[in-house]
Amino acid sequence: MNEPAKSTNQLDALDLRSKLAAGEIAALQLVEACLARIAAREPTVQAWTSLDFEAVRAEAREKDRVRDEGKPLGPLHGLPVGLKDVIDTVDMPTENGCPLDAERKPDRDAVMVQRLKDAGAIVMGKTVTTELAFMYPGKTRNPHNPAHTPGGSSSGSAAAVADGMIPLAVGTQTGGSVIRPAAFCGVTGLKPSFGRIPRSGVLMQSHTLDTIGVFASTPRGAALLVDVLSGPDDGDPATQGEKPLRLLNAPMAKNDPPRFAFTKPPGWAKADAGMRTSLEGFCKSLGARVTAIDLPDLFEEAAAQRLVINLTEMAHHFDRYWTADKDKLGPQTRDAINQGQQILASAYLHALEWRKKLNASLTPVWAEYDAILCPAAPGPAPTGLHSTGSSLFNGLWTLCGTPAMTLPVMTAENGLPMGVQIVGAVGEDCALVQAAEWLWNWAGKPTLG
Amino acid sequence: MNEPAKSTNQLDALDLRSKLAAGEIAALQLVEACLARIAAREPTVQAWTSLDFEAVRAEAREKDRVRDEGKPLGPLHGLPVGLKDVIDTVDMPTENGCPLDAERKPDRDAVMVQRLKDAGAIVMGKTVTTELAFMYPGKTRNPHNPAHTPGGSSSGSAAAVADGMIPLAVGTQTGGSVIRPAAFCGVTGLKPSFGRIPRSGVLMQSHTLDTIGVFASTPRGAALLVDVLSGPDDGDPATQGEKPLRLLNAPMAKNDPPRFAFTKPPGWAKADAGMRTSLEGFCKSLGARVTAIDLPDLFEEAAAQRLVINLTEMAHHFDRYWTADKDKLGPQTRDAINQGQQILASAYLHALEWRKKLNASLTPVWAEYDAILCPAAPGPAPTGLHSTGSSLFNGLWTLCGTPAMTLPVMTAENGLPMGVQIVGAVGEDCALVQAAEWLWNWAGKPTLG
Repeated sequence: MNEPAKSTNQLDALDLRSKLAAGEIAALQLVEACLARIAAREPTVQAWTSLDFEAVRAEAREKDRVRDEGKPLGPLHGLPVGLKDVIDTVDMPTENGCPLDAERKPDRDAVMVQRLKDAGAIVMGKTVTTELAFMYPGKTRNPHNPAHTPGGSSSGSAAAVADGMIPLAVGTQTGGSVIRPAAFCGVTGLKPSFGRIPRSGVLMQSHTLDTIGVFASTPRGAALLVDVLSGPDDGDPATQGEKPLRLLNAPMAKNDPPRFAFTKPPGWAKADAGMRTSLEGFCKSLGARVTAIDLPDLFEEAAAQRLVINLTEMAHHFDRYWTADKDKLGPQTRDAINQGQQILASAYLHALEWRKKLNASLTPVWAEYDAILCPAAPGPAPTGLHSTGSSLFNGLWTLCGTPAMTLPVMTAENGLPMGVQIVGAVGEDCALVQAAEWLWNWAGKPTLG
Repeated sequence: MNEPAKSTNQLDALDLRSKLAAGEIAALQLVEACLARIAAREPTVQAWTSLDFEAVRAEAREKDRVRDEGKPLGPLHGLPVGLKDVIDTVDMPTENGCPLDAERKPDRDAVMVQRLKDAGAIVMGKTVTTELAFMYPGKTRNPHNPAHTPGGSSSGSAAAVADGMIPLAVGTQTGGSVIRPAAFCGVTGLKPSFGRIPRSGVLMQSHTLDTIGVFASTPRGAALLVDVLSGPDDGDPATQGEKPLRLLNAPMAKNDPPRFAFTKPPGWAKADAGMRTSLEGFCKSLGARVTAIDLPDLFEEAAAQRLVINLTEMAHHFDRYWTADKDKLGPQTRDAINQGQQILASAYLHALEWRKKLNASLTPVWAEYDAILCPAAPGPAPTGLHSTGSSLFNGLWTLCGTPAMTLPVMTAENGLPMGVQIVGAVGEDCALVQAAEWLWNWAGKPTLG
């Protein structure tokens, strides 16, 4: 068995999988490399809420034993995965970033955790979330500069992957909680179509918005993880019908390179000038692959309508926290629940219906383009840990339920990463991942094979 | 070809179907018998809003031509069916019982109308509905005594079948709009499980409550019609998954006679004494087939929670009427919309969640019994046309989404019919229809074969 390369834990997940399967590295070696990185960097990055070094080592030894016996291996065999601490785990506390859930011990794993375990993944530990996956920040810092926010709410998952502590992590997005931290931390973030990954056993903030998403160092790594997590589950009515087509190595819908529609979403003018210049330059260099288009006018209203839905459903699902002891909640959480409690049902139902019109307004776009290209965030990660930054350019796509990815292909003047976001039609996750792969290679980030 | 029996139009739908298929009667003869009855009785009963004698005759001639050519016949070939005037039809106005929809001409048939046409049914005409399928009455009178209400909101459909004008009709139920008029008019009413029949192209009052139901002279006639209407439709998210098992001649789940749980729902004590005595006597005579049980305590709250959902969703869906000219609406409709506009989203979401608990509370009942037996209404049809009577004993089951039937097997002291309601577990419509058949035969109403 060879010595692992220094950067083992930073390799693409598929490469790691191949090396593990071939015996070029052992799961224990990979885990040790991850733990070493964590030991060195956690005091600065603070990505974790729960992590048992010995339990993880034992799990890795077990994975190696299974491999050595020549048994069939699951698609994630031996790969360490971090889980945002809103995802229930039976063998680790799940505290939802909230003091009212301190020491909380779920009595069963979330459905997605069972799928990870069945696929042979090593659940590495639980990563920091903002309070109840809303806006009150946790302790995590941006691995590129600890004076900056990592974004949120999936702060720890994004930072841990970005820092090379783990190759893969899971998060959730209700506004911009996957795409934004992925962009701020400089990793690939993938939020699949609403309903692709079941949420059973995951903290519910907003049942018509909450979407599971993932973090990886490459688009294909993200696709691999989403494939394992996807498919219907009786406990989540948003997941219906057949198991969706695999994203990884899905048959190409066509041989031509993807056609991108560059859009400046509402709020563009208020975004960071450097980001705007970079993104326009990026699009310009893509040449004929990109056409600038305007989003339908309806999008001007998207943020307000999304907020109505989010606050209403949040006030409903978090009523138990409010009732238990609202004074223990962070100010952002408390204010949001309080606002949600005042909303009339007519406004809520109107917003749900309006959303269908919003989606329908995109139909002509999808007839012409494979993906919308737009900023992942208004700029690089802002300074300070008091806020996780703006989800201005994410919430509209969560509202649409469209699949979205961010790719770390731009850098700000201060050296922090910036993301390019691409968005596909609802259910067209395969086409979006293929567009991402194309863009990834075009941007000169070929995956090491 | 034989002369049709005098009561052709009052025969069981399956018998009619057999006679039509065998050529014992022609569709035109059947339709003429229906039209003759309508001509004689409509001035009194006033069940119809739209009915074109010549168009119906032409349609019947066409059905006879198809049959004479020996072509394969649909399951309703040549059978006249009435449609509540909230169901869109492209070739007849659909006015929703509302002056603001006077002369309204839909540009396509409701999905269920297409299914009826595909099955060979003759769409006889449109029947009277209360205003917007809510509580403001239409013109219809009870065919047993025109001084009494026929019930609502599917007033015309119930009255037309009860009066022998047509063998089959379709209605909708949000509170008690199928079971109550069926009971008041003395016919079989069947409201299948929520989501069994798609509502695309039907006036939406309350999307989590609205349920399509049917009227027939016998349980098996009702089952035949529901079978034709059932099955998933992309336009109605409440209809999911596979086409459900046919109700008619479904394999018996077991050979034993059904076990009934007799329950006195909340409000029982306030119901008509004669009804209570009759129903208790009915249950007593069923002997060991019936056990008296109490409904779970949660049911005390069901009416209030159902009202929150109904008013909230009604205010949303009927906002266009309110905005267009609320003063043209009847007082019941206007007041209800106004109330619904004040409801907080938190109360609405709480009610939706509470409803899941209500359903779960019935699980132990379904472990022991095939059907709940309870009153269909607080008594026979009340005097007067200013109100369609109380849906006290219906709304709870609409809220549960359980299948429910009423059978006209009791008679009040004033000679008006009264219904016995039976209710099954969600999705167990086949078992409920089998229980109804058993009860029908036991009650001495064997179907003429």
